[in-house]
Amino acid sequence: MLKLYGYWRSSAAYRVRIGLHLKGIAFEQESINLAPSVRAHRSETFEAINPQKRVPVLETPEGALSQSMAILEWIEETYPEQSLLPDTVMARAQCRSFADIVACDVHPLNNPVVLQQLKAEFGASQHQVGQWYSDWIHRGFSALETYAQKRSGEFFFASGPSLAEICLIPQIYNARRFDVDLVNFPNLVEIDAHCMKIAAFQAAAPENQPDSLK
Amino acid sequence: MLKLYGYWRSSAAYRVRIGLHLKGIAFEQESINLAPSVRAHRSETFEAINPQKRVPVLETPEGALSQSMAILEWIEETYPEQSLLPDTVMARAQCRSFADIVACDVHPLNNPVVLQQLKAEFGASQHQVGQWYSDWIHRGFSALETYAQKRSGEFFFASGPSLAEICLIPQIYNARRFDVDLVNFPNLVEIDAHCMKIAAFQAAAPENQPDSLK
Repeated sequence: MLKLYGYWRSSAAYRVRIGLHLKGIAFEQESINLAPSVRAHRSETFEAINPQKRVPVLETPEGALSQSMAILEWIEETYPEQSLLPDTVMARAQCRSFADIVACDVHPLNNPVVLQQLKAEFGASQHQVGQWYSDWIHRGFSALETYAQKRSGEFFFASGPSLAEICLIPQIYNARRFDVDLVNFPNLVEIDAHCMKIAAFQAAAPENQPDSLK
Repeated sequence: MLKLYGYWRSSAAYRVRIGLHLKGIAFEQESINLAPSVRAHRSETFEAINPQKRVPVLETPEGALSQSMAILEWIEETYPEQSLLPDTVMARAQCRSFADIVACDVHPLNNPVVLQQLKAEFGASQHQVGQWYSDWIHRGFSALETYAQKRSGEFFFASGPSLAEICLIPQIYNARRFDVDLVNFPNLVEIDAHCMKIAAFQAAAPENQPDSLK
């Protein structure tokens, strides 16, 4: 069986959980506690699994895979049913583009390791860190909202939830956790509401994981 | 003909140029001057092309596409000859994983817009910005070096240069530009040397672009 090394609050692990649940793939989970008091991701045991010392890692029959977006493409290629990508080449590219706005431009700047670095290196206050966090979300979400306005159904693409929502929903969860005002992004909030009615998104939500502290 | 909106020094545009040249696809370029004194990416004209106001953008027969990794997947699907990905599902996933260490964990933190923000928000000195830059490169490159040690030929994957090198080489170019010490990454430097003997990588190099200032 596939094994996912993750953490309930890791946004990138959350993406992979949604992908696996949307496809109905059975998997077991091993929690890697990222809490500053534990830092299980820095253990030698985990470094042997992922030299980058980050979650998620998916243990496949052919070995361990890191990086959530690469894992999701592996899942898509290995289990093509219930596709996570739209039908046409152009729509697939647009879908990956939307997803990458979160994965390459928003989330990397909001990662806890980055926020800790801002405090350690520049003496950033909690308020300043919050501003930084909110600012990058606003920049990315502004572009995504423009795209979301043009959609014709409940999701970014008519065919159903895709990589776009798989990246968006965990980022919205993070935004809410940090009290980021989402009033300017009504279409994104609407898509989030539609997704959260789907069993796969519920099953993948942080608060529903075995290692959740909430 | 395809049209690439880019900038000679944009690392993400550099990736797309390598991909297009490796496949021998003809394209024209429009330079979007990102220099702080010009900021052509913030113009209304360019915002209409890309709401995220970032390069690269590839103008395709079906419309404009943003996000370098999504553009490269579009190129790969549209022009499958001279594949940018290895042959097996697992190797493709590993290739995307290597590429994403650069695209999702290193480059986003070294983007000029982030470095400017560090100065504006936290009064970071040029020296501190350099440290920040170097630190994220070291973290990502340490993992990539571990993977690179295990390769069997001149490139990450025996089949030839792939998405892995397409992301690595521009990041090494950036590292050198910021005087980051690469002594701990001999395998990455070796792969870079092999790539830079290939005409496609040379043609894509920043200094060989029409808008280059060097």
